Amino acid sequence: DPKLKVFTCNANPELAKEIAEHIGVPLGNAQAVQFSDGECQIKLNESVRGCDVFVIQPTSAPVNEHLMELLVMVDALKRASAKSINVVIPYYGYARQDRKARARDPITAKLVANLIETAGAQRVITMDLHATQIQGFFDIPVDHLLGVPILAKHFAEKGLQDIVVVSPDHGGVTRARKLAERLEAPIAIIDKRRPEPNVAEVMNIVGHIEGKTAIIIDDIIDTAGTITLAANALVEAGAREVYACCTHPVLSGPAIERITNSKIKELIVTNSIPLKEEKITDKITVLSVAPIIGEAIIRVHEELSVSKLFD
Amino acid sequence: DPKLKVFTCNANPELAKEIAEHIGVPLGNAQAVQFSDGECQIKLNESVRGCDVFVIQPTSAPVNEHLMELLVMVDALKRASAKSINVVIPYYGYARQDRKARARDPITAKLVANLIETAGAQRVITMDLHATQIQGFFDIPVDHLLGVPILAKHFAEKGLQDIVVVSPDHGGVTRARKLAERLEAPIAIIDKRRPEPNVAEVMNIVGHIEGKTAIIIDDIIDTAGTITLAANALVEAGAREVYACCTHPVLSGPAIERITNSKIKELIVTNSIPLKEEKITDKITVLSVAPIIGEAIIRVHEELSVSKLFD
Ligand SMILES: Nc1ncnc2c1ncn2[C@@H]1O[C@H](COP(=O)(O)O)[C@@H](O)[C@H]1O
Ligand SMILES: Nc1ncnc2c1ncn2[C@@H]1O[C@H](COP(=O)(O)O)[C@@H](O)[C@H]1O
Repeated sequence: DPKLKVFTCNANPELAKEIAEHIGVPLGNAQAVQFSDGECQIKLNESVRGCDVFVIQPTSAPVNEHLMELLVMVDALKRASAKSINVVIPYYGYARQDRKARARDPITAKLVANLIETAGAQRVITMDLHATQIQGFFDIPVDHLLGVPILAKHFAEKGLQDIVVVSPDHGGVTRARKLAERLEAPIAIIDKRRPEPNVAEVMNIVGHIEGKTAIIIDDIIDTAGTITLAANALVEAGAREVYACCTHPVLSGPAIERITNSKIKELIVTNSIPLKEEKITDKITVLSVAPIIGEAIIRVHEELSVSKLFD
Repeated sequence: DPKLKVFTCNANPELAKEIAEHIGVPLGNAQAVQFSDGECQIKLNESVRGCDVFVIQPTSAPVNEHLMELLVMVDALKRASAKSINVVIPYYGYARQDRKARARDPITAKLVANLIETAGAQRVITMDLHATQIQGFFDIPVDHLLGVPILAKHFAEKGLQDIVVVSPDHGGVTRARKLAERLEAPIAIIDKRRPEPNVAEVMNIVGHIEGKTAIIIDDIIDTAGTITLAANALVEAGAREVYACCTHPVLSGPAIERITNSKIKELIVTNSIPLKEEKITDKITVLSVAPIIGEAIIRVHEELSVSKLFD
């Protein structure tokens, strides 16, 4: 049977280690370092000939460094005769640039998909893509994992009563629906609109939230503007308490300050993106995606081995 | 006739401006900025429909930022219906990773060529590639410009007497030969070798240098270890004075300190890579490549227009 090997670059080595442990293999011996001028150097210190290789690398900030490390690693693996090259991108950077929102916009999420295929990746495992259409940007198999089961389990274990799951915008209703089903709760939607040009946005809440425990869910929390405004609007409208959760804690710029100063009681995120020391606060709980990614890798590896029988 | 437009990202806007001036067109209205999380955003603020577009962007440090800006810019231009997309990469980053020097090395120079083509570039204009083989990494036309004429002109104007052009290693002899021809001078070669394992390298000089004005030439000066050791060896062996020159002043890490403390009298470089303020010293002279790149762009644009007649 072709051997399964797990490698990491620099974006999330802790997660890669956890995944390797879950699978029961040692982390592959490779390093992504820099030459004196900042060019990325990949040192692949063990043979991968004939192996099914999985590279764990979210393309989180610094996104261009992490993307390039991944591409160069894939190039090295390809030239070292890996049997299959599977890239595990728990957080897919540039996902929000997925359409021409304005004239002459690039579609960087598609560009990145092309770059990953061009480097030689043969399969992608990713989580909670900002738009599921991004799967279609690839011409190779994409396994799309969801964070909802992990988040739902956490809330179920907390034993919260009288829950309402809230989508912070129209785009996230399907995601809120999924969490609500698992928690057997109703949903509500924040319906932001601008009554007239040059008049401030109104946070209109569609659904019953008075006296309830609201859980706001999003895929990405970046500067945390949307989610903290939503939380405060919910409390003002009579919610008893407000939790927030997301799969991908980008948390850039003023995010931590906003969350700290908001009415959010607890923010639950996953380790798809590692939280830098300075971003860890009492309010934030991190859940691990290592088990579900580990299981996905085992399943893919079995599939690759079975398909060998039919080759 | 399709219009010629020149754009720049953030790697060398001063050079782009000079090139646009040389050609006699305004610099195109576009910006490469960053979202809060560090993702690159390209704002293309004018139409490029039906235009022959030239994007000036050396992939100098920070190389991954500059490469990604270029790729996203090309994606935006492609989706905005540019007639032709020509990328001008005066310094081609990752050029030294052009072969498997060790087992399991990536060949990043080839990967980068593939990425540039995948993004949608249709032609490359570049200068003094570390290995001319890199032209063959592309399946699109590559115009390869040389820095030697510019450097030779500078030395000729100085009126130096009794010159010998020195290659700092075996790989650079052809380049040294070209400069020597223009200066009607002989060449010499520094023949570094390690007499036995674990014994220091010996700088053996092949050729006559005693009493002469030595000009060392290289394509890239990065940490400046090779060139400063060579300069000092030349002075010790009796050279009257030592000049050094290169096309691409990468000048990373200890480079400036080494050059300052070396026997090099003057270092002549080009602006293929912009010199950061803190790297500018009395010893360094910068020559502009804008005229030769400008001429190349005019030539390519004429070619593209002429070929239209035969379309
Ligand atoms: N990294 C980013 N940070 C903030 N906004 C972005 C980023 N990437 C893309 N966008 C913009 O976000 C919008 C798409 O977000 P959405 O409507 O939530 O799908 C588009 O207008 C993009 O230009
Ligand atoms: N950015 C870089 N800085 C220093 N060395 C590099 C860089 N990129 C590649 N190399 C190494 O430089 C060697 C090639 O240099 P050369 O022999 O001059 O062609 C190879 O061993 C590469 O691994």
